[in-house]
Amino acid sequence: FVSETVLSDKVRNVLILLADDGGFELGSYLNKICQTPNIDALARRSLLFNNAFTSVSSCSPSRAALLTGTPSHQNGMYGLHQGVHHFNSFDNITSLPNVLRQNGIMTGIIGKKHVGPDSVYKFDYEQTEMNNHINQVGRNITHIKLLTREFLAKANKGKKPFFLYIGFHDPHRCGHSEPQYGPFCERFGSGEEGMGTIPDWQPWYYQWDEVQLPYFVQDTEAARRDIAAQYTTMSRLDQGVALVLKELESAGHGDDTLIIYTSDNGIPFPSGRTNFYDPGVREPLIISSPNPTARRNQASGSMVTLLDIMPTVLDWFGLPWEEETNDVVQTDKPKSLLPILEKEPPFSEDEAVFLSQTHHEITMYYPMRAVRTRRYKLIHNLNFGMPFPIDQDLYVSPTFQDILNRTRSKQSLPWYKTLKQYYYRPQWELYDIRADPAETNNLHGKPSLEQVEAGLRERLHHWQMATQDPWLCSPDAVLEHDGADSDSVCRSLDNGLLHYYTR
Amino acid sequence: FVSETVLSDKVRNVLILLADDGGFELGSYLNKICQTPNIDALARRSLLFNNAFTSVSSCSPSRAALLTGTPSHQNGMYGLHQGVHHFNSFDNITSLPNVLRQNGIMTGIIGKKHVGPDSVYKFDYEQTEMNNHINQVGRNITHIKLLTREFLAKANKGKKPFFLYIGFHDPHRCGHSEPQYGPFCERFGSGEEGMGTIPDWQPWYYQWDEVQLPYFVQDTEAARRDIAAQYTTMSRLDQGVALVLKELESAGHGDDTLIIYTSDNGIPFPSGRTNFYDPGVREPLIISSPNPTARRNQASGSMVTLLDIMPTVLDWFGLPWEEETNDVVQTDKPKSLLPILEKEPPFSEDEAVFLSQTHHEITMYYPMRAVRTRRYKLIHNLNFGMPFPIDQDLYVSPTFQDILNRTRSKQSLPWYKTLKQYYYRPQWELYDIRADPAETNNLHGKPSLEQVEAGLRERLHHWQMATQDPWLCSPDAVLEHDGADSDSVCRSLDNGLLHYYTR
Ligand SMILES: [Ca+2]
Ligand SMILES: [Ca+2]
Ligand SMILES: [Mg+2]
Ligand SMILES: [Mg+2]
Repeated sequence: FVSETVLSDKVRNVLILLADDGGFELGSYLNKICQTPNIDALARRSLLFNNAFTSVSSCSPSRAALLTGTPSHQNGMYGLHQGVHHFNSFDNITSLPNVLRQNGIMTGIIGKKHVGPDSVYKFDYEQTEMNNHINQVGRNITHIKLLTREFLAKANKGKKPFFLYIGFHDPHRCGHSEPQYGPFCERFGSGEEGMGTIPDWQPWYYQWDEVQLPYFVQDTEAARRDIAAQYTTMSRLDQGVALVLKELESAGHGDDTLIIYTSDNGIPFPSGRTNFYDPGVREPLIISSPNPTARRNQASGSMVTLLDIMPTVLDWFGLPWEEETNDVVQTDKPKSLLPILEKEPPFSEDEAVFLSQTHHEITMYYPMRAVRTRRYKLIHNLNFGMPFPIDQDLYVSPTFQDILNRTRSKQSLPWYKTLKQYYYRPQWELYDIRADPAETNNLHGKPSLEQVEAGLRERLHHWQMATQDPWLCSPDAVLEHDGADSDSVCRSLDNGLLHYYTR
Repeated sequence: FVSETVLSDKVRNVLILLADDGGFELGSYLNKICQTPNIDALARRSLLFNNAFTSVSSCSPSRAALLTGTPSHQNGMYGLHQGVHHFNSFDNITSLPNVLRQNGIMTGIIGKKHVGPDSVYKFDYEQTEMNNHINQVGRNITHIKLLTREFLAKANKGKKPFFLYIGFHDPHRCGHSEPQYGPFCERFGSGEEGMGTIPDWQPWYYQWDEVQLPYFVQDTEAARRDIAAQYTTMSRLDQGVALVLKELESAGHGDDTLIIYTSDNGIPFPSGRTNFYDPGVREPLIISSPNPTARRNQASGSMVTLLDIMPTVLDWFGLPWEEETNDVVQTDKPKSLLPILEKEPPFSEDEAVFLSQTHHEITMYYPMRAVRTRRYKLIHNLNFGMPFPIDQDLYVSPTFQDILNRTRSKQSLPWYKTLKQYYYRPQWELYDIRADPAETNNLHGKPSLEQVEAGLRERLHHWQMATQDPWLCSPDAVLEHDGADSDSVCRSLDNGLLHYYTR
């Protein structure tokens, strides 16, 4: 199902610009305070997606999903890759860079990689945290510019089409790893004493009382200052994008390259990263096609997911997205976005995206599976008997510490939840997003929605089965392969938990 | 702290005979029904340990611990290695085979390996499930005999001391993977129609009404038949041990080899494998030393753990067990057992072993940490808010199905627990093993034992800290490295769960 494009006789390249924990702090997504003039300019020559989602709200799993077109439970990246977390995709998984390399396309990665094993995710050119300090390849935009220049020169010299993936580390927090640079590393390279200098960076600073506070962050000075710091690194990222795009143009690829800007997971605030609420999984997605008939300065309402990136890029290069690749499911499967770049598909209430998360840190076992349609979201919290886990990085953040301190000392907490509500979640959560965009009114079990809920549950179960989810039967049954056929069957544990399927 | 031995001028070899899920179904451990004449004969020229424990009740984690001297949370093997589970030790871990290879000792593994990555666990000679069918290298005792012969010939030809690790797959269940051979693969190679033949095997069959039923298995015909099948594979393992020992003798190594017989984890029955109750973690351990002054046909009451195997083997070869190796902790650390082979150490109430388990299958997240002294056991169940998980293999077993069926149909269940008790465990369990060997009377929080419990908790916490346990602070706090020093600090989540330490 490779789409026709008009570029079949030209070189056709791909540039991915990936923010780390980036959200909608962008002028193009109607943030009026955070300054991102360069991404906004890119957006004006792009299609901007209003319903784009990651399939998992955690860094390594999201990147593995993006680079393989498979959810984390199917490719083995069940949690973070680095350090004691040590998750890796299975050795037999087919990745985008590996397919492209095998088809003569020059592949490069600059910045944060965060996936493994090496053999599964191999690029011709790699300047990542594996061989550099992450801040140098992920936040030092001058260094990123020079590496981009080097990669493009190599590609040009080899006369090869290229795939370049730039993993910015902005606007990720650094309060846990390098607190000396501020909660978002917003002082790294700022030119202040002891902070070093990034020559190409013109830091923007924001007033805490002027930030545009998301509904899921409490309205306190501490949290607002945290957002202000985040904005500073968003603006650095934005300047980095400008530098990279200028290199692209200088190298002669200003009009033959598909450019994709997105982020791996939600912003690192409560209800964001590691959560399946919309702030955790909804992502900016901006795609600029050099195709003269491509839509520009327009928005798409299509429901799309980062799982669609792999088929999109393969389509762009005229390579097949084989059904057999990674056992891609037959229904509700990833699809090329190229047709949408040309024409908005007919509106359908039926479109859905699927979410699958298991760990973030190795200790943070909180598997969730979810289906999100335009109107509804059904979340299955498999480990609902325990409190929702908090990552080391969020824990030390000014925003979370403020919530903790105010809760402990019984001060007022102008937040849309209580800490206790945040920790303790029921097994099933059903939200009518249209009526309740903040997802605060759980409709699970409501009689008038019984059929809606059953339909969503069945669709989710079907997707889990089709993507070979090891957690298909958890937590109330055991997955067994019964009889001669290899069909998965859930067999009840009789452990007192509900099960909804005949087993 | 390398011990002196009298063999310093001779070759000195090591043979490890590892049962898979083997228990005390051995004449030498006072089972009067199950026939194991060959292991019993070995025991008569060995020291038999009555207080030996694995550090984790799961296959891959136990083997990784045995081969590195580190608990699973420290070497990264948090659960099973194979398939979708996909756990691996960290790339920088030092293993016994790697150290021995680097010191000119010929290393071999025959049978079940079940650990990775390859680079961390590399033997000179490998005939395992990686390059054979597991039953052929793990249960076909004729094949095991021939591979042993091949390995010994190579070692002799190279005139090298050797380390041979034989991973029997008996008496592991196979109802989940190959039910056609019976619940324990007891019909595999039996000579019956369609079962194939293992030429050297003389199958023993047992009457279900005559088995010696462990206290933790229900007294029903179904469960007794399950035990009878297990016995048959124990007797096959026993005959395999005879064949291997005969090869050892024929190759001229009957009196220069340290022989260690043990098992990786408890038997695959409820309260056994995957549990921290004694049936899950107490192991047979029989060590035969050719040293003329070594104790023979004697029992030791010393509290020892499979973590002691690596220092023991290094000691045997005169190689140092370096403090720096895998950051071994300074107190409560693994130790060479060679001195005990010569002389029983003075009795001490203070001896303890430590247990650490996280996953078995990838979906079975039920982290437990425990300390076991002669008298007490304190278990910390970190994910106590959810039911205890059941593995795919135990689930389909006749014993577990019998428990399920009787519970569902409200028939009598002559078992020492209810299914509900088995599933739902409190966060802390404290048992006085001396008064209550079946561990049914939880003394947690009992005022008269307050100091005992606090002491055990502190000792466990200290061990977790010293072994760099990522779960040190779970589930009520987050592990952070505060300030300039890299000391771990637990910082409270205020999630309503108890914490016992000043944070
Ligand atoms: Ca991220
Ligand atoms: Ca085992
Ligand atoms: Mg692997
Ligand atoms: Mg690794």
